[in-house]
Amino acid sequence: MKVSIVGSTGYTGLELVRLLNKHPKVELEILTSRSFDGEVISDIYPNLRGEADIKCEALDIDKLAESSDLVFTALPHGVSMEVVPQLLAKGLKIIDLSGDYRYDNLETYESWYKTHNSPELFKDAVYGLPELNRKEIKDSRLVANPGCYPTASILALAPLVDNDLIDLGNIIIDAKSGTSGAGRKLSLGSHFCEVNNNFKAYKVANHRHTSEIEEKLGILAKKDISLSFTPHLLPINRGILATVYANLIENIDTKFLLKCYQDYYQGEKFVRVMDEGKLPEIKHVAGSNYCDIGLTVDERTNRVIVISTIDNLLKGAAGQAIQNLNILAGWGETLGLDNVGLYL
Amino acid sequence: MKVSIVGSTGYTGLELVRLLNKHPKVELEILTSRSFDGEVISDIYPNLRGEADIKCEALDIDKLAESSDLVFTALPHGVSMEVVPQLLAKGLKIIDLSGDYRYDNLETYESWYKTHNSPELFKDAVYGLPELNRKEIKDSRLVANPGCYPTASILALAPLVDNDLIDLGNIIIDAKSGTSGAGRKLSLGSHFCEVNNNFKAYKVANHRHTSEIEEKLGILAKKDISLSFTPHLLPINRGILATVYANLIENIDTKFLLKCYQDYYQGEKFVRVMDEGKLPEIKHVAGSNYCDIGLTVDERTNRVIVISTIDNLLKGAAGQAIQNLNILAGWGETLGLDNVGLYL
Amino acid sequence: MKVSIVGSTGYTGLELVRLLNKHPKVELEILTSRSFDGEVISDIYPNLRGEADIKCEALDIDKLAESSDLVFTALPHGVSMEVVPQLLAKGLKIIDLSGDYRYDNLETYESWYKTHNSPELFKDAVYGLPELNRKEIKDSRLVANPGCYPTASILALAPLVDNDLIDLGNIIIDAKSGTSGAGRKLSLGSHFCEVNNNFKAYKVANHRHTSEIEEKLGILAKKDISLSFTPHLLPINRGILATVYANLIENIDTKFLLKCYQDYYQGEKFVRVMDEGKLPEIKHVAGSNYCDIGLTVDERTNRVIVISTIDNLLKGAAGQAIQNLNILAGWGETLGLDNVGLYL
Amino acid sequence: MKVSIVGSTGYTGLELVRLLNKHPKVELEILTSRSFDGEVISDIYPNLRGEADIKCEALDIDKLAESSDLVFTALPHGVSMEVVPQLLAKGLKIIDLSGDYRYDNLETYESWYKTHNSPELFKDAVYGLPELNRKEIKDSRLVANPGCYPTASILALAPLVDNDLIDLGNIIIDAKSGTSGAGRKLSLGSHFCEVNNNFKAYKVANHRHTSEIEEKLGILAKKDISLSFTPHLLPINRGILATVYANLIENIDTKFLLKCYQDYYQGEKFVRVMDEGKLPEIKHVAGSNYCDIGLTVDERTNRVIVISTIDNLLKGAAGQAIQNLNILAGWGETLGLDNVGLYL
Repeated sequence: MKVSIVGSTGYTGLELVRLLNKHPKVELEILTSRSFDGEVISDIYPNLRGEADIKCEALDIDKLAESSDLVFTALPHGVSMEVVPQLLAKGLKIIDLSGDYRYDNLETYESWYKTHNSPELFKDAVYGLPELNRKEIKDSRLVANPGCYPTASILALAPLVDNDLIDLGNIIIDAKSGTSGAGRKLSLGSHFCEVNNNFKAYKVANHRHTSEIEEKLGILAKKDISLSFTPHLLPINRGILATVYANLIENIDTKFLLKCYQDYYQGEKFVRVMDEGKLPEIKHVAGSNYCDIGLTVDERTNRVIVISTIDNLLKGAAGQAIQNLNILAGWGETLGLDNVGLYL
Repeated sequence: MKVSIVGSTGYTGLELVRLLNKHPKVELEILTSRSFDGEVISDIYPNLRGEADIKCEALDIDKLAESSDLVFTALPHGVSMEVVPQLLAKGLKIIDLSGDYRYDNLETYESWYKTHNSPELFKDAVYGLPELNRKEIKDSRLVANPGCYPTASILALAPLVDNDLIDLGNIIIDAKSGTSGAGRKLSLGSHFCEVNNNFKAYKVANHRHTSEIEEKLGILAKKDISLSFTPHLLPINRGILATVYANLIENIDTKFLLKCYQDYYQGEKFVRVMDEGKLPEIKHVAGSNYCDIGLTVDERTNRVIVISTIDNLLKGAAGQAIQNLNILAGWGETLGLDNVGLYL
Repeated sequence: MKVSIVGSTGYTGLELVRLLNKHPKVELEILTSRSFDGEVISDIYPNLRGEADIKCEALDIDKLAESSDLVFTALPHGVSMEVVPQLLAKGLKIIDLSGDYRYDNLETYESWYKTHNSPELFKDAVYGLPELNRKEIKDSRLVANPGCYPTASILALAPLVDNDLIDLGNIIIDAKSGTSGAGRKLSLGSHFCEVNNNFKAYKVANHRHTSEIEEKLGILAKKDISLSFTPHLLPINRGILATVYANLIENIDTKFLLKCYQDYYQGEKFVRVMDEGKLPEIKHVAGSNYCDIGLTVDERTNRVIVISTIDNLLKGAAGQAIQNLNILAGWGETLGLDNVGLYL
Repeated sequence: MKVSIVGSTGYTGLELVRLLNKHPKVELEILTSRSFDGEVISDIYPNLRGEADIKCEALDIDKLAESSDLVFTALPHGVSMEVVPQLLAKGLKIIDLSGDYRYDNLETYESWYKTHNSPELFKDAVYGLPELNRKEIKDSRLVANPGCYPTASILALAPLVDNDLIDLGNIIIDAKSGTSGAGRKLSLGSHFCEVNNNFKAYKVANHRHTSEIEEKLGILAKKDISLSFTPHLLPINRGILATVYANLIENIDTKFLLKCYQDYYQGEKFVRVMDEGKLPEIKHVAGSNYCDIGLTVDERTNRVIVISTIDNLLKGAAGQAIQNLNILAGWGETLGLDNVGLYL
């Protein structure tokens, strides 16, 4: 399959290039870049030298349409919607990594993001979380790849919500992300000396991903959910760990709940439910497409604490996008994604 | 005042030496060490070279009693209670940095720690959190210096609990600590390659500090409290950030709550309540004795998110111990503690 | 090919398991471990969970001989020589990652290491640096995999030495390594709080790898070489960067020298010579088997500064060992080694 | 003494504010800032909150002259020379932290920097390295505070050069600096994800500090010196470690050389020569004004390896500037500089 990437020089773009370049069924065609038009991707990211010495180009819709079957759009929110309708109109399939087509509810999008220019596409877009929506993804032409925090959060909570095990009014997600989540754009908040040795919360009570998590869990619950989501910035490059708190409706224990999770994710290659007494760590998944989930019931408070970890650039972005590609194309879902994380 | 340190070569001991050595009213007399008996402290920690070239000695109760007015005991839990009663019997004042004398309730101590050998001292011991117990500290002969997580957590919650503003049944503390909290003792969990680039929760639903936080907040609330406390390990050396969630009983806003906090900590030199819209970060307090506190009311869920930060080795251990010394001795409370954090 | 690993639970062992487990021509048979006998490798390193759930066993020479064609020995220096002769006696091929069989000169080994128990094997052992010894490796039954620092240092210097371009009496190698080079064994020198935010030199003028570099370059030069080698410890997990200084015999410029290097490493898949004006960085190679080399002639002093980088666990250990396996087996040299580094 | 800072919001400015604010003889008057005119310094650096809540102002030469006795100029090279002559003309004393007045030789400055606008001031400017120039500093009105790398390098080499112990034609300085040396200005080279887990050399054979080191050592040697200086970027915030290589003219051993160093720096409060067998580490000096120096003679090559460490922001910038202030003012040289480094 001929595949191109629009917005290939950010950190998510880098990961798409790195993985697609080794994907056994993919020919990587065009890499577009606004900032690095004319430069070779391996000059920007020299880890790719001798592997993917592809020249970046300015965005040209016609050229993309001619040379590609499917396009990954890895653009900022609000920019993606300028491009995606044009590419769809050319008959291309799209996997969009922005937030622009993730929502069912236009009002929610517009109250957390901005005015949308193509809400008529919402009905075509499928939320690309394979563990929940595999069937719909298979037949779609526009996959809206989930956000990184929502991926970790929804996978941690889905078995609880879907099985009516928790009080939906008291869900708390305390999430921590590596700094690559903030992208390669320069900002004081990503300046080395400001991040190193530091840890902080940010966008408390107003991060956009709150609404994405609420909408998708609400669909599972079949009712509206309001929850608290607090992101924090870790002084590491990669990885998200979400610590999720929920009040159990009945007295159930860790063993029972772990069984629920194992059943729920039975057969899912990229979700690993931990054994009792073990909890996930970022280093277990960084560099891989896995989501690891562990949990403990705090019997003193009848509260469950679920911990999930992903690599924000892989299962939280580029890896999941390729998982979606594999589903769309009818290939094995792990194709090109079989790297084990590095641990060190 | 003549001061000695029992257990001077751990990280907390190092900080006690560093600060007491510059304290204008203190003569540092004896440093004891089991592992480094006979070695000079500045050979173990060469930052002290030319500043505190003091030889460490084996513990000798009589010698300590002869040469000291007050002793800091910086020993592991369970070890401290072997030493403290003997020192008290010699008429020394003690500031104990272990968990052994922090509790009012013996059962709580014994269910979270181990059998206690000197519970009769509990009535003499004062919990050394100056912002809550200054008056009792002043007249005590045994100050039980608080744990690091409890310091950050209690200071974050005291104004809410003391003013009856929250549902006591739904308190969640999601805390993150630098690795120096685990001490200098070798363990795989503190091995560089295991901590670096990583982040994990540990002792979920069973960390001992849970019981310390519950007891002290319970005293403020005048009723028993059960809460969830989850510690996590940050790939940095110093600092704790606690993210605290509580459900507000009435509809109050951020501005009102910040005013409560500012009133509550009025005059407290070492607690800085942030202005609206600003939140504490570890780098603002690391290297200092400050506790910074900020908060946001999430109006969508009527939940308050309070964030507090301390340096775990200073306000969470050695700094607070010296603050207690200053109170005991009737000196200015900031004496020897006026270092600003380094930011970088 | 049936392959086993003796000493599989150190960091080098982990990397061998991770890579061999995905190697298309290899069946991973036995993992031995002294410390983790009976434990599953993916419980020790949970990144491997669902990928390599193999139980570690105690060392059993007969069992290894029955089930394996080739064995990787990833043991400490001095321990390897207890095992290797027995395995060879069973007819197995060995790739040994210790220092025990790297030397031609017994005296050199014994003066830098310890008394050797099987020097008669030196004549059979081939120094496994493929870029210099590919032909000999192909036909050997005992490959002595090079040290991490020697790999980076020798590849940086070989074109200069082999082409008689420098004063052999004034070679200086200032090398910096990530902490995984010190292994997983607990020590204060690898304790997180001691390494983080720190940087230091160690074993100045007496690191064993000095003698390995000197012997191998001396063979190229056909005369004895004495040089200065200074290792330093970086607060990162992976990667070595060596900064090499040598005085040029004649006036030659950067462009000319780069051409020499490009010619020298022509066709080498795992050596990338940088273009003029570009220099290697650890993040370009970490996670891959590449050695990147760049250089600048300082015309003011007529000295060349060569910079080389490798991943100490891959090209400096496990990756190179697999490269040697591929050569021994007559497979494509990059088989199982085609991962690009992660950059982030 | 009334003191002001021009350029107070960079990292060096922050350190000047932090230290001068606690200096017992100094009143901190005006902080100027181009980028943060009107903002309070403790809003920019919240570690200073409650300690130094001073509003930054635009540069106003007259106002500075009225309210100050002495001004620290912490501006970029080339910008400083726009300001310093005006301040001198008003009769102020200046401690300038840029490179603009460090050189005796105008040609050297102009070939490594740019055209100078006020070379007539060179004769008034004193190079502010107290260990070499204390007497001249005392009587000067313009102190040119040394660069960070030159401070570490010159202190490491001065005893060798001054005592004619080494071959001046073969000096190599391999230096490594924390990222704060690159300042707070945003650049991809200081972006967290690019620096973290990475290590690289930069400006090989053309860093400006080369010329500063050469000129100052040349004055000591009374002849021209050309040397190789290679800076590298460490993934830490603070600290420089320089590894210096020089060929000894005669056969002398480590013990003898250490004695030379101890004699040379006899009475110097801020230089600590290590005992035999011990070497400096960045964590021993970070946060302090110390320069620690250790060395080993490599008897195999008759080469000495000297290692020196400083905190680049303190002994390498703001700390040394205050040391110069103390000398100028006739105060004790350690006033306001008695902080011990944090080790952790």
